[in-house]
Amino acid sequence: MTNSFSFTVNATDGAARTGVLKTAHGDIHTPVFMPVGTAGTVKGMLPEQVASTGAEIILGNTYHLMLRPGAERVARLGGLHKFMNWPGPILTDSGGYQVMSLAGLRKLSEEGVRFRSHLDGAYYDLTPERSMEIQHLLDATITMVLDECTPYPASEETAASSMALSMRWARRSKDAFIRRDGYGLFGIVQGSVYPDLRRESAEALKDIGFDGYAVGGLAVGEGQALMFETLEMTVPHLPHDRPRYLMGVGKPDDIVGAVCRGIDMFDCVLPTRSGRTGQAFTRRGAVNIRNTRHKDDPRPLDEGCSCPACRHYSRAYLHHLVKAREILGAVLMTWHNLQYFQDLMAGLRAAIAEGRLDAFAADFRAAQEAGDIEALT
Amino acid sequence: MTNSFSFTVNATDGAARTGVLKTAHGDIHTPVFMPVGTAGTVKGMLPEQVASTGAEIILGNTYHLMLRPGAERVARLGGLHKFMNWPGPILTDSGGYQVMSLAGLRKLSEEGVRFRSHLDGAYYDLTPERSMEIQHLLDATITMVLDECTPYPASEETAASSMALSMRWARRSKDAFIRRDGYGLFGIVQGSVYPDLRRESAEALKDIGFDGYAVGGLAVGEGQALMFETLEMTVPHLPHDRPRYLMGVGKPDDIVGAVCRGIDMFDCVLPTRSGRTGQAFTRRGAVNIRNTRHKDDPRPLDEGCSCPACRHYSRAYLHHLVKAREILGAVLMTWHNLQYFQDLMAGLRAAIAEGRLDAFAADFRAAQEAGDIEALT
Repeated sequence: MTNSFSFTVNATDGAARTGVLKTAHGDIHTPVFMPVGTAGTVKGMLPEQVASTGAEIILGNTYHLMLRPGAERVARLGGLHKFMNWPGPILTDSGGYQVMSLAGLRKLSEEGVRFRSHLDGAYYDLTPERSMEIQHLLDATITMVLDECTPYPASEETAASSMALSMRWARRSKDAFIRRDGYGLFGIVQGSVYPDLRRESAEALKDIGFDGYAVGGLAVGEGQALMFETLEMTVPHLPHDRPRYLMGVGKPDDIVGAVCRGIDMFDCVLPTRSGRTGQAFTRRGAVNIRNTRHKDDPRPLDEGCSCPACRHYSRAYLHHLVKAREILGAVLMTWHNLQYFQDLMAGLRAAIAEGRLDAFAADFRAAQEAGDIEALT
Repeated sequence: MTNSFSFTVNATDGAARTGVLKTAHGDIHTPVFMPVGTAGTVKGMLPEQVASTGAEIILGNTYHLMLRPGAERVARLGGLHKFMNWPGPILTDSGGYQVMSLAGLRKLSEEGVRFRSHLDGAYYDLTPERSMEIQHLLDATITMVLDECTPYPASEETAASSMALSMRWARRSKDAFIRRDGYGLFGIVQGSVYPDLRRESAEALKDIGFDGYAVGGLAVGEGQALMFETLEMTVPHLPHDRPRYLMGVGKPDDIVGAVCRGIDMFDCVLPTRSGRTGQAFTRRGAVNIRNTRHKDDPRPLDEGCSCPACRHYSRAYLHHLVKAREILGAVLMTWHNLQYFQDLMAGLRAAIAEGRLDAFAADFRAAQEAGDIEALT
């Protein structure tokens, strides 16, 4: 197999690794967190603001973009990078997950899935071939195979047949994918929480051959302990020389634990969605800025943070903005959360490079458990 | 009378003037447009983005700020400049206008106005003395006297007694205002559309003595022709050496016409509010970006504009964002509109300085009437 982009592991610490993925749109330093830009925008943020946090790659949602503005339209306008003014790498999902969670009246078959748009009720077909075509039209740097995200919980029998379907779709995705230098296609391991199925899925994907390997079907309600167990039984079956991506994860402590278990890539709506509702992630745990205790507090949201929300504004001001439902409240809280996630990833990369990941993880947990800084006296 | 800040007229062209107002928080080049930052934020914009458009002063609303977060709280947190991270000049209104338009159960008396907050129904008293105190607590660079904005239409008798009350409140405002270097207090001319009342009001304010003179009670439904007529009968009675401020105006062609009639300062929610609903002001007139004709248009919103929305994005992308109700759509459209208004003011200042205001105004009207650029073929 010729690889469409290079991935170099520069250092390891236990199961964890740090490295560089070189793509047509720029380098990605792993472990990496990808902010979610669902509909051609990381909600509330200008692309240069996203980049200022240290983000090197963002995620776009095929489901949303195929419905509005439409993949062919984005292609006519020069592709998603130009359309949204993000010149860096973009990973697009296959659309399958959101079809299952957002669309109405779905019909799953061997061929693919037929669904009705949540926007206007129109019918659409999503097959592995069409998913590859859409992601090509969007000009995704990293394309994901179409799969079925097995619901949780699932019996071993259900999980096995669902995984088998995903493996047949992975084959068809690979066949339909148009290879280009600096672009790549990732397979997705399924198999729910069953070790044999996860191993079988990983082996099947390796036989097909991909540029990276994602772990799907997690963070769907199984809980952190079972998620970590599943990673421990899955990651050893993935190639060492290819990036590993845990889809849809997650909370900061999920990320720290998954990095310790060998995961290189993450995406989650948590920093952006939480920012819009007044929830902040800080070095001392979660903060709800809507809480009345912040209304006279002149201190920054997070003393250790360098983002504009923390450098230029008080908790009192952020509290005011969020309570008054001002757009700037959503902007500043989102900006802070994205900065927090990027700072966490930079800390993890440095700790792995310096062989002190265990100490980093222990310090991280202790600070989180210490809780938010004491109330003003 | 000693003046708390200096105003220098550098050039005139007909009734129009261009000059500099020097304040404790920076210089203001007139004619000037002040973006409205109602509740301690110019909606959707970071202060550095507002400044990047060329804005030198913003407006804050006393009514909103006294209710939330509260003037005493803003003072404890270091004043409005620090609270919202806008180090430049801020003009605050008196609160009177919004009490009349937004608050419930108002009771007007010689003493002032009692009203119920639209937020929580609590009772508040706003008197000339309390309005001065609130604006002082906010640390307003320019404070406005409390007045009654005479409703339109009003009989001459009603307008006369309303104006007389405003003049008594102007006296009490002046007496209560705490003078500081680089800070100032503006009086407000009332008198509806009646020449004798407007002259009487202007003379009464000059007798009291203010740092600037506003024309109030316009842009309340009387129409542009009557607004311009009222300016023509009012401005000649205002001192030449003090800035003149037309409150709550307005549309670009209102501003051009008012500058030609000797007005130096403007404020209006139009660029920000319109931005949030997808309405753009351009060199070729108004554009509704929601219109389907923009959905495939790769061109910028306004070919002549240097704002980020016009430099980095297509009409198609802005159309997509606004249709999808993305925050970034409101941000980019607002940013463009603020840039458009600031560019218009810069054009007016240059035209006055160079003695070609009539030609500038004629070109402006011709371009507006030509309408938006032709549809894509």
